[in-house]
Amino acid sequence: MENEKLEILRKSMKQLGIAAYIVPSSDTHKSEYISEYWKTRAWLTGFNGSAGTAVVTQNHAGLWTDSRYFILALQQLEKPFELHKLATRNPEYIEWLLEELSSGDVVGIDDQLFSVAEFEHLDASLQKRGIVVQTVGDLTAPIWKNRPPQLNGKAFIHPIEFAIIPRSVKIQQLRTYLSQQNYSHILLTSLDEIAWLLNLRGNDIAYNPLVTSFCLVNRERTQFFVEPGKISSKVLHDLEKDQIERMPYDSVSNVLSHLAEKDCLVVDKNSLNRRLFAQIPKACRIVFEPSVVQKFKAIKNEKQLSKYREAQLFDGVAMCRFLCWLQSEIKQRPISEVEAGEMATHFRGLQPNFMGISFEPISAYQKNAASPHYSPSKENPCYLKPDGVYLIDSGGQYLGGTTDITRTVALGPVTREQKIDFTLVLKGHIRLAMSKFPKGTKGINLDALSRLDLWQRGKDFGHGTGHGIGYFLNVHEGPHGFSQAAQNVALVPFEPGMFVTNEPGYYLEGSYGIRTENVMVCQPDPHSLQGDFLIFETVSYCPLDKDLMDISLLADVEIEWINAYHQKVFELVSSYMNPGELAWLKDSTSPIKKHH
Amino acid sequence: MENEKLEILRKSMKQLGIAAYIVPSSDTHKSEYISEYWKTRAWLTGFNGSAGTAVVTQNHAGLWTDSRYFILALQQLEKPFELHKLATRNPEYIEWLLEELSSGDVVGIDDQLFSVAEFEHLDASLQKRGIVVQTVGDLTAPIWKNRPPQLNGKAFIHPIEFAIIPRSVKIQQLRTYLSQQNYSHILLTSLDEIAWLLNLRGNDIAYNPLVTSFCLVNRERTQFFVEPGKISSKVLHDLEKDQIERMPYDSVSNVLSHLAEKDCLVVDKNSLNRRLFAQIPKACRIVFEPSVVQKFKAIKNEKQLSKYREAQLFDGVAMCRFLCWLQSEIKQRPISEVEAGEMATHFRGLQPNFMGISFEPISAYQKNAASPHYSPSKENPCYLKPDGVYLIDSGGQYLGGTTDITRTVALGPVTREQKIDFTLVLKGHIRLAMSKFPKGTKGINLDALSRLDLWQRGKDFGHGTGHGIGYFLNVHEGPHGFSQAAQNVALVPFEPGMFVTNEPGYYLEGSYGIRTENVMVCQPDPHSLQGDFLIFETVSYCPLDKDLMDISLLADVEIEWINAYHQKVFELVSSYMNPGELAWLKDSTSPIKKHH
Repeated sequence: MENEKLEILRKSMKQLGIAAYIVPSSDTHKSEYISEYWKTRAWLTGFNGSAGTAVVTQNHAGLWTDSRYFILALQQLEKPFELHKLATRNPEYIEWLLEELSSGDVVGIDDQLFSVAEFEHLDASLQKRGIVVQTVGDLTAPIWKNRPPQLNGKAFIHPIEFAIIPRSVKIQQLRTYLSQQNYSHILLTSLDEIAWLLNLRGNDIAYNPLVTSFCLVNRERTQFFVEPGKISSKVLHDLEKDQIERMPYDSVSNVLSHLAEKDCLVVDKNSLNRRLFAQIPKACRIVFEPSVVQKFKAIKNEKQLSKYREAQLFDGVAMCRFLCWLQSEIKQRPISEVEAGEMATHFRGLQPNFMGISFEPISAYQKNAASPHYSPSKENPCYLKPDGVYLIDSGGQYLGGTTDITRTVALGPVTREQKIDFTLVLKGHIRLAMSKFPKGTKGINLDALSRLDLWQRGKDFGHGTGHGIGYFLNVHEGPHGFSQAAQNVALVPFEPGMFVTNEPGYYLEGSYGIRTENVMVCQPDPHSLQGDFLIFETVSYCPLDKDLMDISLLADVEIEWINAYHQKVFELVSSYMNPGELAWLKDSTSPIKKHH
Repeated sequence: MENEKLEILRKSMKQLGIAAYIVPSSDTHKSEYISEYWKTRAWLTGFNGSAGTAVVTQNHAGLWTDSRYFILALQQLEKPFELHKLATRNPEYIEWLLEELSSGDVVGIDDQLFSVAEFEHLDASLQKRGIVVQTVGDLTAPIWKNRPPQLNGKAFIHPIEFAIIPRSVKIQQLRTYLSQQNYSHILLTSLDEIAWLLNLRGNDIAYNPLVTSFCLVNRERTQFFVEPGKISSKVLHDLEKDQIERMPYDSVSNVLSHLAEKDCLVVDKNSLNRRLFAQIPKACRIVFEPSVVQKFKAIKNEKQLSKYREAQLFDGVAMCRFLCWLQSEIKQRPISEVEAGEMATHFRGLQPNFMGISFEPISAYQKNAASPHYSPSKENPCYLKPDGVYLIDSGGQYLGGTTDITRTVALGPVTREQKIDFTLVLKGHIRLAMSKFPKGTKGINLDALSRLDLWQRGKDFGHGTGHGIGYFLNVHEGPHGFSQAAQNVALVPFEPGMFVTNEPGYYLEGSYGIRTENVMVCQPDPHSLQGDFLIFETVSYCPLDKDLMDISLLADVEIEWINAYHQKVFELVSSYMNPGELAWLKDSTSPIKKHH
């Protein structure tokens, strides 16, 4: 028997008359990161990357994932699962189904794991060829032994000295929007939007301080649907002061089913799951719109920005200590990738207001860094040596903000090619960091700035240049971002107060990977008289490795930028360093000069 | 009586029970440029810009147009028409209608002047508030005395030595597409697509060598709907050799009304008019897709490209002669903007294979050039003097291609600001011209390259950086182009063989305007080993005015680009110059140097 899980699944598919069953990577809130309980696709296929969809028929078991995960998927996939390489971000398994199935065939899904938008697309595509989509619930539930339980951590208040804006003010902002738009209700389905609105945080998903819940707001009421056990009496008391009504999590479908004909509900079709949608009476008017809370949440005010700069300083201190430790320790002994990642976490843990890491560190030596989303292995450890380049992409959750920073450093001698590529990536990073642009400019207009120097040498990298980042929330958040693709995030204009990462890279498979990432905040250009131009302020504070720079490739303005950045890092970080660290910092931030 | 036309129109609106009547700028093929016969909006309002929509109610007469035309509209609009300034490219008059009208009100339109897409958007928007769209035909027809007749010029064959690809091959290409996609018919509604397919040109619209017609292609037949008088027996004979069936123009609606249930028609909803759409039986399957011919047409092959380079050389010779004449003549006497434009046309007229100009020259002195779409006035002539800057944007129709070129030149002393702005625009032009980018890159990704230097000084320009351009066809053609906006043209990836203009500018209202425009063709990068990178080759040949360059602002690579470009212009153009012109050319193309 090749694969028992698959055999049982196929049996129940046969009983139900289902030709294909789709297992997406999703929870019922369409979260980017999901809890262990929802990792059905990983359990079924063996592949544990964050993105991928499995499709099972009687004679095929396939896993569709994107280029970030091709190497990992080939290593992890259990037989007989086969890898289908996604060429685009589209759900290409639909095209496969169209080719494999016949008119009248039935495709089974668990509709609570599909957003309304995903379901509509799947259904419309298959309908064209007479293929039927049918809701059959979770067929894996009876098979999955030892399924991890749903987490039931306690929710806690995000203190107002960090949240800055009281939840009552946020709710009022939402109600003003409802009345301006003539909507009666808004249903929030994305967990980070609810956490933001209620100034509440939790522990339901690793690295993401979220509380599994729904929230329905109308002109008078705020209904918060959550497992009662997650809400302590202290938190409940605090919520009730602002007239938040705590309701059982599961009661949301019943409440939605009682919406009246005169009601007009606005909801985001990319995060509302299909099962919940089906509860809403047809008579009630439903408006699908990207959630307005995404934008409210993305624009941080001045007070939040100073808390954020402080969190970034704490994070920069930890990163400096870590890099100083690494570059000295590596001369003494080999260090495993896992240990290096853990040490980065260790130094973060010493910092004030630290609440945990914001994602598992990508700690990757030489060729391992060629996978942008590499995950170091404990079982087959790879050891860093005093030679070549090492990449660490890591971040923390602080009460005053979420951080995300990548540094690529020389651990010893590096090649001429490595220096050139590091410098090309750095030039792109700097061009984007220095850019000034009119209001209305979107990420898709600016993304190429970080690529021009690579492109001139026929090189490129296969991911977007940057993403929005939360404020003690998700490490990835919308609505904005840098990308070449005409996807939603890249089509949202930048506004003052938006945080965004700047992380170009270069990946040479089998050899090495390079990435340089700082967080920036969009600001009004102080020199713009009409206030119609914007700039970015870099708010990550950690040296860029001068040993990897080919100074002859740098323009004078780029050298000035590097020196000014390093001077700022030194000014901010130096007072937190011990004597050994201070010497390292001084050396790492001393000015570079062009040899004429 | 303030406005007789309006009074009569309002009377018939009253009789029909119509609260508002919309007069768009359109013919029945949604052509960008329209013949005099269709210029109803211009006749009604007095405003003759190419873009604008009039809306008339009983107590308001409004004209909506975009920023290119604000100044012109204010000068030309007849009372009581009021200008509504468009903030976006959206039809904002719909929002106005939503505010002004009440539920149950009727909006009248002539449905042959609305594309299916426009109609759907209008109807859906107004329906939300219970406002009804009603087809009432052309209410202006009975009022419009002395309406210009429909042009009935003869169609002529685009000789195969210029067309290069026989129509039979193009039709076969289309049929392959139909069978690949499982469509039975394609209806071509855009006049330039039909002209391309049939290797036919005409004279129905000024500057656009088009034949008013429709064309329906299925797996066996090609039906060409055109006024019989336009087709000479010689042309007819040629068409019949390729089994093209000439049908009366008006019979297209009858033929469409007989499509069968088993048929599947593909058509472009942005150019099919609503009246024609209404003729198609509901039972027939209709697929709306951007016309595939747009893409076929946009990608020119190597033989077409050499013809195009030759046409550009002819055009460059004319432009050099013109600029040489202008810069010498202006020292003797004032020259009117109109005369200067006519002289550019005169020099083009001396060139081989010249078939007419491709648009009315924009001949603009100093502050007049601050309107990107300025049209010089014969009634109130403006005279060029040996002082300041002059802009001329002009082009020709040649058997081997359509040209479009803009030069801004010093006629005498210029200000420091004018030199700086010219140089910033030039730097943007060069950065785009030198760019190298991976396959898949779109205009929206590259548009900013031409703006970075302006942006750094808080400046910008209000139009896209460039458009596709036809091959002895329309001066503007899709599907690609450079723009900051997420409009269709900017989201189409560049492919080798696509022509595109590169025309950044800077406009200082009340002072001066600057634009530098060349045509480029997308090419595979010869240094790209995997063939996965593309570049642009500049194919317009005329000097850039060195007197307007602030060399201190130019980078070394930019100076190298300018010198190489000028050397190429000299090599190509010089043998066509008379001795006086040769001296001018030599001087105009001599290398520039940086003073260190």
